[in-house]
Amino acid sequence: MTQKPLDGIKVLDFTNVLAGPYCTMMLANMGAEVFKVERPGTGDDSRAYGPHVNGESVYFLSVNRGKKSIVCNTKTNEGREVFKKMVTKVDVLVENIKPGAMERMGLGYETLKKINPGLVFTSISGFGQSGPYSQRPAYDMIVQAMGGIISITGEPGGAPVRVGISIGDIVPGMFAAYGTLAALYERRVTGIGQKVDIAMLDCQVAILENAVAKYSATGIVPGPMGLKHPLISPFEAFKTKDSYVIVACGNNNLFNHLCEVIGSPDLVNDPRFDNNAHRNANIHELSDLIQAKIYDKTTAEWMDILVNEGIPCGPINTIDKLFVDPQLKARNMLVEVEQGNIGKIKVAGNPVKLSTVSPEDELPKGSAPEIGEHTKDILVNLLGYTEEQAEKYIKECH
Amino acid sequence: MTQKPLDGIKVLDFTNVLAGPYCTMMLANMGAEVFKVERPGTGDDSRAYGPHVNGESVYFLSVNRGKKSIVCNTKTNEGREVFKKMVTKVDVLVENIKPGAMERMGLGYETLKKINPGLVFTSISGFGQSGPYSQRPAYDMIVQAMGGIISITGEPGGAPVRVGISIGDIVPGMFAAYGTLAALYERRVTGIGQKVDIAMLDCQVAILENAVAKYSATGIVPGPMGLKHPLISPFEAFKTKDSYVIVACGNNNLFNHLCEVIGSPDLVNDPRFDNNAHRNANIHELSDLIQAKIYDKTTAEWMDILVNEGIPCGPINTIDKLFVDPQLKARNMLVEVEQGNIGKIKVAGNPVKLSTVSPEDELPKGSAPEIGEHTKDILVNLLGYTEEQAEKYIKECH
Repeated sequence: MTQKPLDGIKVLDFTNVLAGPYCTMMLANMGAEVFKVERPGTGDDSRAYGPHVNGESVYFLSVNRGKKSIVCNTKTNEGREVFKKMVTKVDVLVENIKPGAMERMGLGYETLKKINPGLVFTSISGFGQSGPYSQRPAYDMIVQAMGGIISITGEPGGAPVRVGISIGDIVPGMFAAYGTLAALYERRVTGIGQKVDIAMLDCQVAILENAVAKYSATGIVPGPMGLKHPLISPFEAFKTKDSYVIVACGNNNLFNHLCEVIGSPDLVNDPRFDNNAHRNANIHELSDLIQAKIYDKTTAEWMDILVNEGIPCGPINTIDKLFVDPQLKARNMLVEVEQGNIGKIKVAGNPVKLSTVSPEDELPKGSAPEIGEHTKDILVNLLGYTEEQAEKYIKECH
Repeated sequence: MTQKPLDGIKVLDFTNVLAGPYCTMMLANMGAEVFKVERPGTGDDSRAYGPHVNGESVYFLSVNRGKKSIVCNTKTNEGREVFKKMVTKVDVLVENIKPGAMERMGLGYETLKKINPGLVFTSISGFGQSGPYSQRPAYDMIVQAMGGIISITGEPGGAPVRVGISIGDIVPGMFAAYGTLAALYERRVTGIGQKVDIAMLDCQVAILENAVAKYSATGIVPGPMGLKHPLISPFEAFKTKDSYVIVACGNNNLFNHLCEVIGSPDLVNDPRFDNNAHRNANIHELSDLIQAKIYDKTTAEWMDILVNEGIPCGPINTIDKLFVDPQLKARNMLVEVEQGNIGKIKVAGNPVKLSTVSPEDELPKGSAPEIGEHTKDILVNLLGYTEEQAEKYIKECH
């Protein structure tokens, strides 16, 4: 087992479903030990989300591998007592319950920092700990919709569509992991922790990129553009004999080379297309001219030609293709793991490749926990309970 | 000016367009000082991307604020000499050129770590530093297509659509910032830096979430689902009298409450809908039953009702709505900045809210640089050149 950057860091994970668990997964991937607090009975909501195999949620396991689960009902005095004891033993607390709820349970940052001044207290919520919407609940699709991304995704003139993944949760999970690590970094100088406040809606705005720039500069409200890029041309999907091929030329050299490769060298000096601004202004004519040349070969044939010529290109892969892709295999990005009742199953790998961590150590060891699987272990080994005290707790609180 | 976590950290930014600049922007937002290396003449490719206001690219400024620009042509001996001198003065190097190109210029990690063993060397590339596709060029849309997200975004049965933002660049930028920070954290213990290798394609797989879980568990290839969620119901857009409202019920309590609020309490105990698995299996019937109740009021009316009842809900905002949203205003998420020839313009704020950083310090000070604006400053103050030497360099190399 190689050394990992967060070896020795302990995380109290009071999160549910996706944004919070994705954050603590990223911390676990870097070596942190994660204690997942679950309510008695049903545990994390995502344990109920399909698909299930032999009763286990594959969704749940995909973001909770290698974490330890302790059952703890923070609505009871005993639960809060255990929770606070854990706070004194950890470096980080991540929670994603409704703003104000931690305070109402006597577990807010102002209280907890008194018992652990070094604590980094990371909150993820729909709209943040402040502002007029702070008390509203949110899920991925709510913030995708409110944050503008749905309004710029889809066919021009067509119905709005959701981004096909829960980007409204995953991106905040990523910013939360980054913010947590920044606060840990600062703590090594100051000795003091702090509160990190992540709002799902804020994160949607932070990734809007050219849509914000465009509206800000021009006052024009961007709309969906199907498969085209709003600012760069050509940068889109062309139909081939059997499917599509994506071609993306981000500068003049690439565009000029593409023109030669498709047998249209005359386009290079055409004043309609001689720089990116002109190509954007005449995008439909340009697309039609390129399309006419692409249509007569298959995607595989075009991939051979374009890859060989160094033109950025790619097929539109369905999910099954990823599982057999040689590059993703070489990069260890679909990792076969063993999970209790399920057996072997593949999950997404860790995209942060560190030179000091070998491929087999990129993901944490161990499967996703059963509810309360580590209650006794945590009570005894982290909190110093006796076996009898731990068993009494389990009998009364599980 | 408040203390920030990365105060004192220096970053040599040898990146272009978006993934790399987004990474170094995140580091700058946390307090790092970023030296952007640009080639003579045209500088960063994204300076050519519209929209332009008074000759300045708003796209470029939106991810390069507060960075310092030095012109340095690494294809010349003199440029490489300056580059290497900078390496000895910084903590982090971020680059996003083609794998192998740094090595061919004599600027690979194995060379640079000899002159600065503490260096964290972060590479972002389309497909990574290893594997059969390593030498292929990539842009956002290429990896969106190859990484599967396009195949699950769009209308069921409709044409594939691109996610409306450059998620293929921004997510790797985020993972790169996280990986860089993890390596910096480890360095504080070991004193030694390392190489962080981020592939845009890997990052697409890392955020696929339920699509990987679903295919892995069932062998069923997921397709686009428009505005519906693949695993949770109801979790979709309903048509109102004037537009849409998103309603998302992630557990039974929320679903039961929704049924009462829309005047359909009979659905609560309906065996077709009494848990999430049953609701998923009967999603079309359920959607129709809810839709029939939603259609008779406007989005604003439904928002009032649903917000008041604590049901997760939201409108589908276009980009202009974000600029007047009271929550985003309260959260400082669209920040007015001053930029040379442009004047005042709004950019996306920093979504990582730290309790130790005041709102006015969340973004770095200063505008986005002109090409080579800080060449002299960097040569003199970072590298110890005399005024004359610096002026000679500028005359010969700019």
